[in-house]
Amino acid sequence: MAESKCAFCAIIQGHAEAVMILENERFLAFLDHRPLFRGHVLLVPKEHLRLLSDLPAAHAAEFLTTAQRLERAVEDGLGVSGSMILVNNVISQSVPHLHLHVIPRERKDGLRFWLGPRHPYDSPGQAGEYAARILAAL
Amino acid sequence: MAESKCAFCAIIQGHAEAVMILENERFLAFLDHRPLFRGHVLLVPKEHLRLLSDLPAAHAAEFLTTAQRLERAVEDGLGVSGSMILVNNVISQSVPHLHLHVIPRERKDGLRFWLGPRHPYDSPGQAGEYAARILAAL
Repeated sequence: MAESKCAFCAIIQGHAEAVMILENERFLAFLDHRPLFRGHVLLVPKEHLRLLSDLPAAHAAEFLTTAQRLERAVEDGLGVSGSMILVNNVISQSVPHLHLHVIPRERKDGLRFWLGPRHPYDSPGQAGEYAARILAAL
Repeated sequence: MAESKCAFCAIIQGHAEAVMILENERFLAFLDHRPLFRGHVLLVPKEHLRLLSDLPAAHAAEFLTTAQRLERAVEDGLGVSGSMILVNNVISQSVPHLHLHVIPRERKDGLRFWLGPRHPYDSPGQAGEYAARILAAL
């Protein structure tokens, strides 16, 4: 269930400290110790899973409704205008244990990535080719 | 149920075109017409909702398991190393209709926001204050 060197498993097992937000049978939420913005929360399964798609379907509803509770609590509790809910799978995933970020957002908060370079399709046909590859794997 | 000027409601109602990925009773997935990376998919509820937290709890499991299917299909179908799953609530939300992004990712793909400026806590006490505000709203 746990990996010996996983930073989040250490928190789950009580071997490392974190500022706790909530705990239930399957999930734990705590403050990111290196927040993008203050109040940045991580929601993790107690089971050591890597990808969002690794989460068992039987736990999907509880995971998402817990994320929704955290979203409302971050927005309302911190009085911010919005939030970003994010899961990095493999790339940019600093800890290889599934974690959903709930990040408080404000206008002009300096998080500009969303305005970054885009990679448009060269043609409608090219978009169709990408769709076909995704559909073939669906 | 639908808002007359909503770009996603127009797609859902068949008044605007999109490259479709999947459709079921409650949800629709299609290619983002302005992809961060090619193969960037959006999952939207057919009902016009604004925030992730607005999604009824009864639909949570289907929404998340559909997102998981899309994650696997994007990763496997496009042969990429990872993915980013993201929901913007209000801030950076260009269309005010809930949409979950499934974005293919590769190492050194140029999406550098995650390395951007962080806003650390000045002290452990300050982290505790933020946690208390979130907990009070939970």
